[in-house]
Amino acid sequence: MTRIQHTVVFRLVHPAGSAAEAAFLETARATLPAIPGVRDFAVHRQVSAKSDLAWQFSMVFADEEAYAAYDAHPDHTGFVASRWVPEVASFSEYDFVAADQPAT
Amino acid sequence: MTRIQHTVVFRLVHPAGSAAEAAFLETARATLPAIPGVRDFAVHRQVSAKSDLAWQFSMVFADEEAYAAYDAHPDHTGFVASRWVPEVASFSEYDFVAADQPAT
Repeated sequence: MTRIQHTVVFRLVHPAGSAAEAAFLETARATLPAIPGVRDFAVHRQVSAKSDLAWQFSMVFADEEAYAAYDAHPDHTGFVASRWVPEVASFSEYDFVAADQPAT
Repeated sequence: MTRIQHTVVFRLVHPAGSAAEAAFLETARATLPAIPGVRDFAVHRQVSAKSDLAWQFSMVFADEEAYAAYDAHPDHTGFVASRWVPEVASFSEYDFVAADQPAT
C-alpha cells in the first residue's frame, strides 16, 4: 500500500476572477471530494511567475486501487468530459509518493 | 502573512538508482532543510506517466519574506550553482497558497 498524492496544476480558459472561473472551482469542490477514496482534497492558487498555470487540485489516495477506482468513477469521468476538457486551457499532472531516505 | 508551499518537480541527468542520484538527493537533504525559514522539507518521487519528471522537493515558508530570505541565502544559491545547474536536466517550479472558497 503506497499513499499517493495526485495533483494537477492548470490554467482555465476563463479570465481570472470571473464568474465562470468561480463556477468551475465550485463544481470541482462539490464533485471531486465526494468520490469514494478521495482524501484531503484541496484547491490552491499557483503563484510562481515561473509557470503560467494558476490553480492546483490536490488529493490523496490510500493506494493505487483507490486511485484507479476514482479515475474510473462516473462522477470523475463526467466532470472531465463536461467541465475539464472544455474549460481547461493547459495543465500538468503529477503524482507523488514518499521517497525513501537515500543510504548515507 | 501568506503560507507558501514552494515546490520543484525535476529530472536529473543521472540514471535512476545511481550513486550520483543518491548523492544529489543526500546533499539536498543535508543542505536545504537547514536553511532558516524552511519548514516541512520533503523529497517525493513523481510517479505519473504523464510527466517525465521523477522527483519533487517541497518546502513551506511562513510568508514571502521567509521565502525571499531562503532564495537569497548563500547555502541555497551555492546548492543551485554547484549541484542544481549541472545535475538537473529539466524542471518545473510551482508555488502554492490556499485558495479562498469561491462565493456560492
